[in-house]
Amino acid sequence: MRRILLTVAYDGTGYSGFQAQKSGAKTIEGELNRALQSLTGEEILVSGASRTDAGVHALCNQAVFDTESRIPGDKFTPALNVRLPEEIRVTASREVPPDFHPRFCSTEKTYAYRIYNAQIPSPMRRLYTCFSYTPFDIERMREAAAYLVGEHDFKSFCSVHAQAKTSVRTITGISLTEEPLPGAIEDPSGTIRYRDRDGYPCREIVLRVSGTGFLYNMVRIIAGTLMEVGRGAIPPEKIPEILAACDRGAAGPTAPACGLTLEVFRYLEGADFLQEIV
Amino acid sequence: MRRILLTVAYDGTGYSGFQAQKSGAKTIEGELNRALQSLTGEEILVSGASRTDAGVHALCNQAVFDTESRIPGDKFTPALNVRLPEEIRVTASREVPPDFHPRFCSTEKTYAYRIYNAQIPSPMRRLYTCFSYTPFDIERMREAAAYLVGEHDFKSFCSVHAQAKTSVRTITGISLTEEPLPGAIEDPSGTIRYRDRDGYPCREIVLRVSGTGFLYNMVRIIAGTLMEVGRGAIPPEKIPEILAACDRGAAGPTAPACGLTLEVFRYLEGADFLQEIV
Repeated sequence: MRRILLTVAYDGTGYSGFQAQKSGAKTIEGELNRALQSLTGEEILVSGASRTDAGVHALCNQAVFDTESRIPGDKFTPALNVRLPEEIRVTASREVPPDFHPRFCSTEKTYAYRIYNAQIPSPMRRLYTCFSYTPFDIERMREAAAYLVGEHDFKSFCSVHAQAKTSVRTITGISLTEEPLPGAIEDPSGTIRYRDRDGYPCREIVLRVSGTGFLYNMVRIIAGTLMEVGRGAIPPEKIPEILAACDRGAAGPTAPACGLTLEVFRYLEGADFLQEIV
Repeated sequence: MRRILLTVAYDGTGYSGFQAQKSGAKTIEGELNRALQSLTGEEILVSGASRTDAGVHALCNQAVFDTESRIPGDKFTPALNVRLPEEIRVTASREVPPDFHPRFCSTEKTYAYRIYNAQIPSPMRRLYTCFSYTPFDIERMREAAAYLVGEHDFKSFCSVHAQAKTSVRTITGISLTEEPLPGAIEDPSGTIRYRDRDGYPCREIVLRVSGTGFLYNMVRIIAGTLMEVGRGAIPPEKIPEILAACDRGAAGPTAPACGLTLEVFRYLEGADFLQEIV
């Protein structure tokens, strides 16, 4: 029996998340299993590193499976891609030790949450961003974000449906960046750097959260809370209080899934044979 | 009777182009007509500036229509957006003189053609780019593009199905730019500036073509021809010969529709009351 590690990119639009479901709903895992069965003739069940939610995207999720096939590790990439729907692509494949599992390694993941911040939603960005016309104050969002970096009990930033034993996690870094949209007028001295002619924000804001582990809905609740800070509904200095409450009700709403993408997956320990996988 | 000008953005994926069809196929124009009828109760037929093909996108197509309604010009934007599918958004609306039509003004349009140039196609960019793993030589593509700038007979770059009276058009500018994709390694001295670890290109190439008028499929044939130049199949200095041939067979293939976006629509004359519309 050989173990193969896949790096998988997907557009989560229209999928019921990564994990295969008993209902038979369309999932990333289900499509990978189907493609592997078509390729090898074996009943293969892949095991993923991040069980991303319905509608969430990924550039680099990790999944392993065991096979009796003799297909060289790197050849699974092209062989699976011709069998997968175009919303899913294997970007790398390789043989790993039989006891290797990305979920049992020390890893760091980076999620990006994108906000399309403009007067009118964008047809071409609608599937990969969360739309808002609110004039967010990014500096205040950065102030608030800084309180979240480090090891904390993130119970307030975790879905009440989560089943993890502990809600202590470590965020290794948070950044907020902005890019102008077509037609933006730059005002470097203003609170909103990029505006349209009518004074509305005209930019895409990207929140990136890196950490060694995440709770269910954690990045989306962080995004929803920072948006509340950005619009002035929560003062940045209230974040320590929200953390201390250990109560989901203390934080802001869960931001929509479509804005979220798993962008980077880094192995810190337990996988010296792998280089960084993007 | 009042005339209203709309600026319309759309994701052309899944649409049979801009122009309404007798077959009843889903089109941008058809959806605008339906939304206007729902809003005003009138049988309204919009008239568009650019009849973009099936699968082509736009940030700023222009359309006019006549109405008896008393809705203020700028209020059509929100009123139509709640009645349109999310693939289509009106980004601006205003009343214009009753004889105004964007097709009869002197205008300049900019189209962007995007090539996702990497080892593996991207699920999240698949709808808005044309995929190719070919290591295109962008410098040669730029050399070739320079021959196309100016007034020429573009018959070789026009679909044989076109019905225009003359195939003489003016291209006011062409540019080729590239952006690294996640995981790209930069080599400023190499022919391919951004590559992945395996040596494949790892970038998005954007070809922008500006002109005062375009023939049917013209930008897609220019894109297809420049890709042939980039892969070494056509030498850049052969472009004048291809133009002179006035024969569709002399140019390269028509690049896929999904890579094309109408990005900028500028009024040069005949619309002094309008500012640049993006």
